Amino acid sequence: MTHTLVPSDLVEGTAVYGRDGEKLGTIERLMLEKTTGAVAYAVVRHSGFMFSNTHHYPVLWNSLKYNSQRRVYEADLTLAEMQAGASELDGDAFDWGNRAPPYAPPLYWGT
Amino acid sequence: MTHTLVPSDLVEGTAVYGRDGEKLGTIERLMLEKTTGAVAYAVVRHSGFMFSNTHHYPVLWNSLKYNSQRRVYEADLTLAEMQAGASELDGDAFDWGNRAPPYAPPLYWGT
Repeated sequence: MTHTLVPSDLVEGTAVYGRDGEKLGTIERLMLEKTTGAVAYAVVRHSGFMFSNTHHYPVLWNSLKYNSQRRVYEADLTLAEMQAGASELDGDAFDWGNRAPPYAPPLYWGT
Repeated sequence: MTHTLVPSDLVEGTAVYGRDGEKLGTIERLMLEKTTGAVAYAVVRHSGFMFSNTHHYPVLWNSLKYNSQRRVYEADLTLAEMQAGASELDGDAFDWGNRAPPYAPPLYWGT
């Protein structure tokens, strides 16, 4: 049986892997457009060695494909591509809530 | 400054009040359409006296208005109307994941 819906709290905490199999991070939350209820993007948390240097990256929902066997999301980008885009260093007072369109889309968001 | 986006984990746990001011419950999670990333509905948990008789109700996203002063959502329905619609008794194996359209919309969902 195939479900067409997924609970938000199941998405949160799910791992994301890149095109080349490298782990990109974990979905920390989804950012929703208040009026339409559309997911603008997922916030992916990536931690460095020993949890140092944690960053949060926006990844578009439609770039994420759920792999039900592995129970992870697979994204059509690499860690390097994700890191080349917009990010928020953990603890910074970056205003994610205001990152609504129009914003400068990272390179990897494509067209 | 007005934000157009809201984080999913901030929505989860937020109280919902009805048209007549009565508390309808708390948003437990959002159900998202996998392909489009659109919020199909919020799952509102309502507990009876001493947390007995807990039910979960689907409430459409566009029926919820956020009140930033009170920090709660306000819905254009009453508790009685919500309870007259579809629900899942806590602990039942009701298949929420499969409640995608087409499903029988509860009365209060309107047109």
